[in-house]
Amino acid sequence: MASSSSADDITRASTFAPVNIAVIKYWGKRDTKLNLPTNASLSVTLSQDDLRTHTTASCSPSFTSDCLTLNSQPQDISGARTQACLRELRSLRADLESSDPSLPKLSTQHLKIVSENNFPTAAGLASSAAGFAALVRAIANLYALSSSPTDLSRIARQGSGSACRSLMGGYVAWQKGEQADGSDSFAYEVSPASHWPDMRAIILVASAEKKDVSSTAGMQQTVATSALFAHRAEEVVPKRMKAMEKAIHDRDFEAFAVLSMKDSNNFHATCLDTQPPIFYMNDTSRAAVRMVEAINALHPEGKTYAAYTFDAGPNAVVYYLAQDEDMVAGVFKGLLGEKTGWDSPRGKKIQVKEGALAGTEVAGEKLKEGISRVILTSVGDGPRKTEEHLC
Amino acid sequence: MASSSSADDITRASTFAPVNIAVIKYWGKRDTKLNLPTNASLSVTLSQDDLRTHTTASCSPSFTSDCLTLNSQPQDISGARTQACLRELRSLRADLESSDPSLPKLSTQHLKIVSENNFPTAAGLASSAAGFAALVRAIANLYALSSSPTDLSRIARQGSGSACRSLMGGYVAWQKGEQADGSDSFAYEVSPASHWPDMRAIILVASAEKKDVSSTAGMQQTVATSALFAHRAEEVVPKRMKAMEKAIHDRDFEAFAVLSMKDSNNFHATCLDTQPPIFYMNDTSRAAVRMVEAINALHPEGKTYAAYTFDAGPNAVVYYLAQDEDMVAGVFKGLLGEKTGWDSPRGKKIQVKEGALAGTEVAGEKLKEGISRVILTSVGDGPRKTEEHLC
Repeated sequence: MASSSSADDITRASTFAPVNIAVIKYWGKRDTKLNLPTNASLSVTLSQDDLRTHTTASCSPSFTSDCLTLNSQPQDISGARTQACLRELRSLRADLESSDPSLPKLSTQHLKIVSENNFPTAAGLASSAAGFAALVRAIANLYALSSSPTDLSRIARQGSGSACRSLMGGYVAWQKGEQADGSDSFAYEVSPASHWPDMRAIILVASAEKKDVSSTAGMQQTVATSALFAHRAEEVVPKRMKAMEKAIHDRDFEAFAVLSMKDSNNFHATCLDTQPPIFYMNDTSRAAVRMVEAINALHPEGKTYAAYTFDAGPNAVVYYLAQDEDMVAGVFKGLLGEKTGWDSPRGKKIQVKEGALAGTEVAGEKLKEGISRVILTSVGDGPRKTEEHLC
Repeated sequence: MASSSSADDITRASTFAPVNIAVIKYWGKRDTKLNLPTNASLSVTLSQDDLRTHTTASCSPSFTSDCLTLNSQPQDISGARTQACLRELRSLRADLESSDPSLPKLSTQHLKIVSENNFPTAAGLASSAAGFAALVRAIANLYALSSSPTDLSRIARQGSGSACRSLMGGYVAWQKGEQADGSDSFAYEVSPASHWPDMRAIILVASAEKKDVSSTAGMQQTVATSALFAHRAEEVVPKRMKAMEKAIHDRDFEAFAVLSMKDSNNFHATCLDTQPPIFYMNDTSRAAVRMVEAINALHPEGKTYAAYTFDAGPNAVVYYLAQDEDMVAGVFKGLLGEKTGWDSPRGKKIQVKEGALAGTEVAGEKLKEGISRVILTSVGDGPRKTEEHLC
């Protein structure tokens, strides 16, 4: 599967991997070493046409150490998480090599990994998910592993929890699992993108502001100090996971949207209930909430056109269906048309919905002030193998 | 007790009543008609030297209807809540008149109630608590009722829930009660102000911004839609009430402060978990949180100098002890010395703590931008009878 260049005896393989944005949020680990979560989560994989990490993994007897660069910057790979991924992948390759002695001994060679994101790192998108998914997928390709995406998701999870959900396309759940060794804590496909291809997303990227607390540190503070968190993890999320899977199977946008908004707010509520409190949403985020509510208030049947969700930062991700593109993205284009991001093929097609919505003047001004760019995307597929190598 | 003027046959009585700011928050009713809460709450009564409602109640055979003015503006008193208070007080007076026929039949006369607040209504302070406490106390004085503050608290509660806690001084709890008729849902004194007189408060009044949702509407939306609220009401608050009463009995500021901050955050977390979400804290409020955290980080023993708490609005109330006045209020004076409020006798005495705290530049700028005035006050006593009549 991997290409080999006899000239310099380098073997290489490349992949693209997608970003995912959860609608039932991962927050809290029951095992920090293995990245085992306190509750299940569910995400939409976003299209790699718009957001992706491109990674090439190569190995050679001539390499003298493992190394990783991201956007041309050398990265530290000595951390336990990266090391866990490399160790597990090498071990699988070593098993292959044991069973078939004709295979080249790639497991004993050093690895060179080169990654590039096609989106600004400063955008505060969950780049570690796409990053670790791409790293694991690229090395699995390099090593010609027959592991399934679910098998690989167990490995990627150890690099960054939410990375396990970026190994598949469409609508992806990460089950909590019960085992202490993490063997049953993996991602699975709820439905492929083709089941419900009309899902669209607009990401409102908030102007760079120092993040309150890293999600790695923040989630464990929440586990340790919030009086509400255990109730969320044990009672609230399990019911919502079932309801969200059903909404996806039924292509029920109303249920999907209401659950998404509730779960985002519930997650941020446990952040606020942390001691000291963690604030990821700011006044710009709140303005985005109000704008989505105003858009939904236009629905003739009292249903929803759009659903907001916020990760561990102020950016709003707004999900909607293709049929409502002008009603949702069109309102934001009318408001934020001057910002970066509308010149993409998707952006150009969106019709501006003219005229501010009643009662949203304050929220509109806040958004103009606080949003620096928009990204338009949709549900997409899982990692794509490519022959386009970065080194 | 009430003064009577034979010339025009008017009987009158006046009182001052205090504001209270809860440290264990009231949010949610189990009975909206009787204002019966879903959980107990606990507050500090603030000094009437700084914040108070002054109310005169008068009655006369010549009056042709009940009326109420607040700050010279006529108020609607036809609402069920005001009517419930008037009805209960009249009924108690009628009982007195039945048992002693020599008493003037004040219960059959119309009431004229005149109220004035000595603080700006726009400040968004909980003026309804002081207002209903003053109304009930003034009429009880007028009627020469022998009812205890606890008895009166049951009546004031029906006007505005938190008003029941303004009928006493010092540290006051409002017990939830179990009875359907509300007979056991009243306020009681945890400790008088004299038990722990060193408690101080600085109120950081945020620039006027339209309130998100009224607390009356907001709390019932939370009860109806939050997945976390019942857990707060049933599990979290009962434990905190006990711990807070102990902290007050022990004059343990550390415990008082930590519980206050946790409970404020917990309450706002349930607001955020409401559908649609309710946001009372804004970026200015968050900056106040960060500033209090920075002040506390200076404590040589890792304890706390100050505790923030937020009601249903963006204003921060920061509690601290007299001995730490310069460390807490002094920091805010250094930062916000240009704002209204420092020219009071309390304010003039505060020494500016020079130099911004490390890492608080952003929070400091946000506060300068978002805070319009400060109010300096302390724990205080309960309603004070006065011969100073407003009409």
